[in-house]
Amino acid sequence: MLLRMSSLFVRTLREDPADAEVPSHRLLVRAGYIRRAAPGVYTWLPLGLRVLGKVEQVVRQEMAAAGAQEVHFPALLPREPYEATGRWDDYGPNLFRLKDRREADYLLAPTHEEMFTLLVKDLYSSYKDLPVTLYQIQTKYRDEARPRAGLLRGREFVMKDAYSFDLDDEGLQASYARQREAYQRIFSRLGLEFVIVSATSGAMGGSHSEEFLMPTPIGEDTFVRSAGGYAANVEAVTTPAPDAVPFDGLPEAHVERTPGTPTIQTLVDHANAHVPRPDRPWQASDTLKNVVVALVQPDGGRELVVVGVPGDREVDMTRLAAAMSPAEVQAATEADLAARPELVKGYIGPGVVGQANTGRQDALRYLLDPRVVPGTRWVTGANVEGEHVFDLVAGRDFVGDGVVEAAEVRAGDPAPDGSGPLELARGIEIGHIFALGRTYAEALGLSVLDVNGKARTVTMGSYGIGVSRAVAALAESNHDEAGLAWPATVAPVHVHVVATGKDPEVFAAAEELAGGLDGRGVEVLLDDRPKVSPGVKFADAELLGAPVLVVVGRGLASGVVEVRFRRPGDAARLGVEPRREVEVAGAVEQVASAVAELLGS
Amino acid sequence: MLLRMSSLFVRTLREDPADAEVPSHRLLVRAGYIRRAAPGVYTWLPLGLRVLGKVEQVVRQEMAAAGAQEVHFPALLPREPYEATGRWDDYGPNLFRLKDRREADYLLAPTHEEMFTLLVKDLYSSYKDLPVTLYQIQTKYRDEARPRAGLLRGREFVMKDAYSFDLDDEGLQASYARQREAYQRIFSRLGLEFVIVSATSGAMGGSHSEEFLMPTPIGEDTFVRSAGGYAANVEAVTTPAPDAVPFDGLPEAHVERTPGTPTIQTLVDHANAHVPRPDRPWQASDTLKNVVVALVQPDGGRELVVVGVPGDREVDMTRLAAAMSPAEVQAATEADLAARPELVKGYIGPGVVGQANTGRQDALRYLLDPRVVPGTRWVTGANVEGEHVFDLVAGRDFVGDGVVEAAEVRAGDPAPDGSGPLELARGIEIGHIFALGRTYAEALGLSVLDVNGKARTVTMGSYGIGVSRAVAALAESNHDEAGLAWPATVAPVHVHVVATGKDPEVFAAAEELAGGLDGRGVEVLLDDRPKVSPGVKFADAELLGAPVLVVVGRGLASGVVEVRFRRPGDAARLGVEPRREVEVAGAVEQVASAVAELLGS
Repeated sequence: MLLRMSSLFVRTLREDPADAEVPSHRLLVRAGYIRRAAPGVYTWLPLGLRVLGKVEQVVRQEMAAAGAQEVHFPALLPREPYEATGRWDDYGPNLFRLKDRREADYLLAPTHEEMFTLLVKDLYSSYKDLPVTLYQIQTKYRDEARPRAGLLRGREFVMKDAYSFDLDDEGLQASYARQREAYQRIFSRLGLEFVIVSATSGAMGGSHSEEFLMPTPIGEDTFVRSAGGYAANVEAVTTPAPDAVPFDGLPEAHVERTPGTPTIQTLVDHANAHVPRPDRPWQASDTLKNVVVALVQPDGGRELVVVGVPGDREVDMTRLAAAMSPAEVQAATEADLAARPELVKGYIGPGVVGQANTGRQDALRYLLDPRVVPGTRWVTGANVEGEHVFDLVAGRDFVGDGVVEAAEVRAGDPAPDGSGPLELARGIEIGHIFALGRTYAEALGLSVLDVNGKARTVTMGSYGIGVSRAVAALAESNHDEAGLAWPATVAPVHVHVVATGKDPEVFAAAEELAGGLDGRGVEVLLDDRPKVSPGVKFADAELLGAPVLVVVGRGLASGVVEVRFRRPGDAARLGVEPRREVEVAGAVEQVASAVAELLGS
Repeated sequence: MLLRMSSLFVRTLREDPADAEVPSHRLLVRAGYIRRAAPGVYTWLPLGLRVLGKVEQVVRQEMAAAGAQEVHFPALLPREPYEATGRWDDYGPNLFRLKDRREADYLLAPTHEEMFTLLVKDLYSSYKDLPVTLYQIQTKYRDEARPRAGLLRGREFVMKDAYSFDLDDEGLQASYARQREAYQRIFSRLGLEFVIVSATSGAMGGSHSEEFLMPTPIGEDTFVRSAGGYAANVEAVTTPAPDAVPFDGLPEAHVERTPGTPTIQTLVDHANAHVPRPDRPWQASDTLKNVVVALVQPDGGRELVVVGVPGDREVDMTRLAAAMSPAEVQAATEADLAARPELVKGYIGPGVVGQANTGRQDALRYLLDPRVVPGTRWVTGANVEGEHVFDLVAGRDFVGDGVVEAAEVRAGDPAPDGSGPLELARGIEIGHIFALGRTYAEALGLSVLDVNGKARTVTMGSYGIGVSRAVAALAESNHDEAGLAWPATVAPVHVHVVATGKDPEVFAAAEELAGGLDGRGVEVLLDDRPKVSPGVKFADAELLGAPVLVVVGRGLASGVVEVRFRRPGDAARLGVEPRREVEVAGAVEQVASAVAELLGS
């Protein structure tokens, strides 16, 4: 395949687009791979589409190798199946909804669990038909509140979604493991670094899920890992609860005047000064901070709840939101608080909150951090301006209406599996796999007859890869200041041939070289523009990022061309200099061999 | 590639689906190629997706050969560009419209002229950049009033749409010709019979367009052709107007009582009995029939108009609708007529209709058939119950507000280019090419600087192929009573290997044969189901329609397998019997050669 810069539909930009925050977005636009059509909605130009196609090809090959069969669903779907599973509502404003000319409700699918379930129900009826894993590479729609970072968080995007159907849990485990391995192979082949972390299931539901994250500081997802091998999305981190403490011998609770203590630090200082603890000084972690938040249900219903966390930690709204999904979490407003006169700002305590605690149905629900186990002693608000209650003992003096993972996770926190302290990092979610279990099959009536002729509900998994996002992730991890620097496996072309100067012989030689490479099955982009300076051509070549650059120019007089590797690692892998001169005579052969080696073929 | 019936995600149906009207729909569903997800919205199962992929591949190759570059646009698009060209409204209820979470207007694109125009405007600015032709293979949306016939008229479908951009008319002609030739190659390679007919441009606008129709009685489109080479979609047929006749010597108009003549035939009979014409009997073609219809504009505005056609012809609502596009045409209702007391049902005549005719702004517009040239004499309504006016002369006694091609076209009508009488046939539109001209470029401000540095508006063409529809067209033209019968080029697999009986040796031999073919690059579907009868297996094989069937069964004991060709024409082309026994030893070689020959490779 031979493309020519003189006719290729591309236009490189020297300036960063104004709306681009991250390198992949900046460079994919500047290099003419994508263009924005609307917020979070992108057009693929020829070079971008080539990269996308190559990523899809890797995904297809590994899906086939894992025994998954390809199908293709519509994006425009009727409401009913999503109504049956509750997701028509649960998706809230993230779902694009529309009506057809007969006023029937439709949606643009954000994911296809319902439809795959119904399809298998339509075609299959016996245990003998199982297991089966189906997948598609298809355009998805989510009306993100904040589309950002180009392809990283779009509203229309390409996804590979696979679904497994099994008779029993062992089958699901095997199907899940097979997809998990396929994901590892896919990301390895693409050259994407990844960490597999435990995750929450969000709108998907199900018993267990894991995310594949590409570590990068610009990632939207925070995850933790321990030296001992624990890894989880920060939303999925569980807090190891301490052992309960016997109540015997614990002091009685006592209310103290604590004027002028609007913050945890001022409260601790005041306590140490005026209500000293005999054994050691008071610490922030001895206080119980009660934070009022609003839960907004998908149907718009708004409920205030109080979340109690140790005073040395903030409430992490992302973790709280994951715990409360599909409800959204918002900060409580002044109006919210005004409607609840029992809440004394800065002095809220268990005395007036919690239904179990107060015995009042109209009390706000009170959700407690897992560290608040029976027998733990707390300093917390006394629900009176300027007063706190000390030695308030959980399980003796107050209880919660539930436990919630809402407190921030911090570097150094212990891993829940005891594998050591946690470190925090950021990443891009490039894959997510879910052991869904029977939720969808139950909602939509998917059962098969087992070996005894009895109907059994099928158990499912679902497995997603953000294919267009993977292109952005590849750009994130393969660029430098000058531009993109693709690995050969996904590069839009393997070799960029630049003819410099004005000498017709140079152009003819470049043409011949490009043709020779094309004849060897190498994908070539030939910069044959007659009136463009070498500087512009080199800058374009670096921006576009083909792994091998061949410069045909003045050296031609002495029978050589220059071969440059865009990625220092590629030259190292081949054991050659990043820039070197090669004889024209053997150039096609040498470059083609280098490309073949980079492609691992 | 080797698929196995034991695990392939397919389920064949013995019964036709209730909603299937045409063979392609019936068979594609029964053979497990597609499934309906919603009205006019289909899911592709593995075998169907393979056929679709092969059609796409042919399209891609020929687009590349024609110099077109592939891009990919979103389906979800903002309103503004479509507002600028008027199509946001013009598409009326055929357009899927929706709002995002910020209440911004979006649409699901029915076609992408606007976006391609804006993209070229974004990237290009000089005559040196032109010509360029871009294309995509992409999912389109049209909210059809009557989705029907499976993939033939869907609401979500796959289309190849290409767009050419040129500086001048000669360039457009060349780009148009290049796409036209590519279409001929594509349909020839796919084995689809086609007729190229002149067409109307409909919602697309532009100066000139042609359709590629596959002739078939189940087609939705009617077209005409003459022995002399004229061919047109029936909407595009122009009526050769007769020469005007001098008024001198024409009799005066005179009103006659014509009671009891509710139909043209009764009117003609009455006239011949009571108002005989001296030179020859009255004929239906001497009468002028005035039909009231309602035009509904995309914005909902409703206007009654009167269409005058010779009484021997019906008004063809399809032709009228094409002439009135983007307005829709509806029959006038009783309420419509009641609101216009001057219209005397059965006796409507020019006396009270037509703005130019009556000199009244509030009169209904009167549109006349091209045959109503000055000097022609007509019998028509006198706007009084039971009265007609005779010898009413066009141009002398009445005029129209315009000319309209609304009268039906009939077999035997003369071709407008004088190439002989027309014959009528039906066809499926598989391609449509438009010389758009500058309409879109003007609306969206696409100009480039010419060689003198002056801004020049670009001229465009647009070129569509219904890719998913082509799959249905292929099924329409490649099936028999037993099922589908694919040409090798687009078959989901080349060879279907059936193991019959229960003998493990038979299954082992079938397996080996299938593996051998796979090793030779042949795509194989192996029916390895252990407990399925040969009858069912053969029925499935005929339904699925692979071009070559290899039966491994009892013959194995004597060292032979049976090779059957699904399509008699394939066997004839290869010069072999449609069914024959071949030695097991050479079977792989022979079958692989046959497949290679059928593929033309």
